Amino acid sequence: MELSERAIKMPSSPIRRLAPYADAAKRNGVHVYHLNIGQPDIKTPVEGLAALRNIDRKILEYSPSDGYLQLRTKMVNYYAGYGIYLSPDEIIITAGGSEAVLFAFMTCLNPGDEIIITDPFYANYMAFAISAGAVIKSVKTSIQDGFRLPSIEAFEKQITPRTKAILICNPNNPTGYLYTRSELEQLRDLVLKYNLFLFSDEVYREFIYTGEPYISAFHLKGLEEHVVLIDSVSKRYSECGIRIGCLCTKNRKVREAVMKFCQARLSPPLLGQIVAEASMDVDASYLKEVHDEYVERRNFLIEGLNRIPGVYSPMPMGAFYTIASLPVDDAEKFCKWCLTEFRYRGATVMMAPASGFYTEPGEGRQEVRIAYVLNIEDLGKALVCLEKALKAYPGRI
Amino acid sequence: MELSERAIKMPSSPIRRLAPYADAAKRNGVHVYHLNIGQPDIKTPVEGLAALRNIDRKILEYSPSDGYLQLRTKMVNYYAGYGIYLSPDEIIITAGGSEAVLFAFMTCLNPGDEIIITDPFYANYMAFAISAGAVIKSVKTSIQDGFRLPSIEAFEKQITPRTKAILICNPNNPTGYLYTRSELEQLRDLVLKYNLFLFSDEVYREFIYTGEPYISAFHLKGLEEHVVLIDSVSKRYSECGIRIGCLCTKNRKVREAVMKFCQARLSPPLLGQIVAEASMDVDASYLKEVHDEYVERRNFLIEGLNRIPGVYSPMPMGAFYTIASLPVDDAEKFCKWCLTEFRYRGATVMMAPASGFYTEPGEGRQEVRIAYVLNIEDLGKALVCLEKALKAYPGRI
Repeated sequence: MELSERAIKMPSSPIRRLAPYADAAKRNGVHVYHLNIGQPDIKTPVEGLAALRNIDRKILEYSPSDGYLQLRTKMVNYYAGYGIYLSPDEIIITAGGSEAVLFAFMTCLNPGDEIIITDPFYANYMAFAISAGAVIKSVKTSIQDGFRLPSIEAFEKQITPRTKAILICNPNNPTGYLYTRSELEQLRDLVLKYNLFLFSDEVYREFIYTGEPYISAFHLKGLEEHVVLIDSVSKRYSECGIRIGCLCTKNRKVREAVMKFCQARLSPPLLGQIVAEASMDVDASYLKEVHDEYVERRNFLIEGLNRIPGVYSPMPMGAFYTIASLPVDDAEKFCKWCLTEFRYRGATVMMAPASGFYTEPGEGRQEVRIAYVLNIEDLGKALVCLEKALKAYPGRI
Repeated sequence: MELSERAIKMPSSPIRRLAPYADAAKRNGVHVYHLNIGQPDIKTPVEGLAALRNIDRKILEYSPSDGYLQLRTKMVNYYAGYGIYLSPDEIIITAGGSEAVLFAFMTCLNPGDEIIITDPFYANYMAFAISAGAVIKSVKTSIQDGFRLPSIEAFEKQITPRTKAILICNPNNPTGYLYTRSELEQLRDLVLKYNLFLFSDEVYREFIYTGEPYISAFHLKGLEEHVVLIDSVSKRYSECGIRIGCLCTKNRKVREAVMKFCQARLSPPLLGQIVAEASMDVDASYLKEVHDEYVERRNFLIEGLNRIPGVYSPMPMGAFYTIASLPVDDAEKFCKWCLTEFRYRGATVMMAPASGFYTEPGEGRQEVRIAYVLNIEDLGKALVCLEKALKAYPGRI
């Protein structure tokens, strides 16, 4: 009755380790500013919520394994607005972007197969890789370089006969980095040279702050059969809870195989599909306002962080995260200390130790990931908390 | 860019192969009586639907990875009503029973590990086993014996050093069989003797037609650490689409490991949890009426089937399926012929070839699984269709 090796290897993230301390602080009446999670405070489109109130079904039955055609057809139009031309058949609805990543890995990667990802990366990629028995080979990026893509040689050095895929998250969680056209074209050449899959997680497409047009993996010529796009409505419409994402690919063999995994789990969430479809009717001003709000928050946060002595954060170009380095001995210890020992005017701050996003133990030890998912006023108070905490922390260096 | 071996091995079920023919028939105006799927025509409790209409949230945010405490607390009471005593921590909410099976397999089974299941079995167990790299060893049951549990020696013969678990589905999909106390106690002894996990899929608990009290795997003394219960509200409240199930276990190590898979996919569907929780407020008369309706349908169907020359079905004791043998050369061919060639008064019938539920190729070749999820009137018309089709079918034997 032993657990499986994969169950033992599955990471438990530093954020999860800190959660009980945050709960305890709250039970003691302390206000905790949550900069640790990707749960935005932005309102879900009223169109999505209204669709729930207007449901006149009598039976909440299975939906098709690939999702409702009506939703997929609407997504075709949405993607066309970004110059991504798909047919409804090329879009498979999943339970969040998470299930899309899992199915992509399960379909394309054998146990022992390798996938290259830039380090630091979204921690759950590791969990899904372990689920599929695949191995992540990482290519380091660093805070000093603003987490820009390393030289293509660094990627090429990681390629072995077991390499099956490269995964990019663009704009990047956790770094906020946005890939340039030149970087993406170099990646394309590599993918073609070694005949790899390119998994492209583009769930933060709407959250780009540089004014440049978005470049999707689907915009890269010659990669039509290689690209597996991971997407989600969670962040776009602030409806993380409905669990609706999708996997898009023009590769028919991949699609047919993914569908077998979809059929095994019967169907994606019905109610989430109804909300997602209705949310897509929201006026363009909704996304524009959300975008502008995040630009303001980003500027406010990054300026504020860099004003605190010893703190450094590059300027993120997209998503709603940044990785900042702190003048502390160990960021996980510091984050725990903030939750257990430190209070400023009855409040404290919770951040994600960045070590959870790096593959090598010890990496990112002085870094935290900060999500700017609070309004400006709360962000300001959180920054004050952080500054006071850094002054008081015994492990300051 | 080859697919993974598991993707290639993933079964595509005979029902899926038939689906395009059913769609084509419908496009041509033919009425198809669907006896092939587990989608009941029973209404979802109005309490569940009302909860959707009354949602006053502004943000549809992530729910906890193990599901809302309020829902789990309500489930504690529900289980207590069946003499199953769990704490909220011992219940983990999943995206349908499907995800509970997947997480149980991923957590407990290494690639190459073996799990014993009676044959025929719910086809998606195979898909989840392949996902985990596990091997299903089957123990045959047969229509002649009413699909009763084979001798415990037959189970013991399948045990090898790689055996990690036994899975039971009780009441059984696809056979409708209900395990006796004596059968379950023999299984318990075997589980204890070889120190195995017992995965017990009990999603059809409410659908038992023998008047006997229900025996859960959790009722078996001494198995507390061995049992992983798979459950779902899909069939109970006819809300298959909301994708809410759960995994229950008193084994702390299993629970902690399952939680790591839960955290990787962030959260179960939020809206489904709201509906499931509200559905649990439905009056006891709802489940009683549904139960009585199914008893009537079952009696009507099985009597009708056995009156057709050459057809035989045992009397199912639970769930809402039966496996019937037909006087045909090949049930899949016959089912396809019904959809493509045969019409009676503008209608035809769709059934699931039973071969998809057996592990050995060739097994169940003359059998179909019939779900009695239609009302009596439609069941009657479907039976007439089936009788006429069997008379006209060129491959009749």
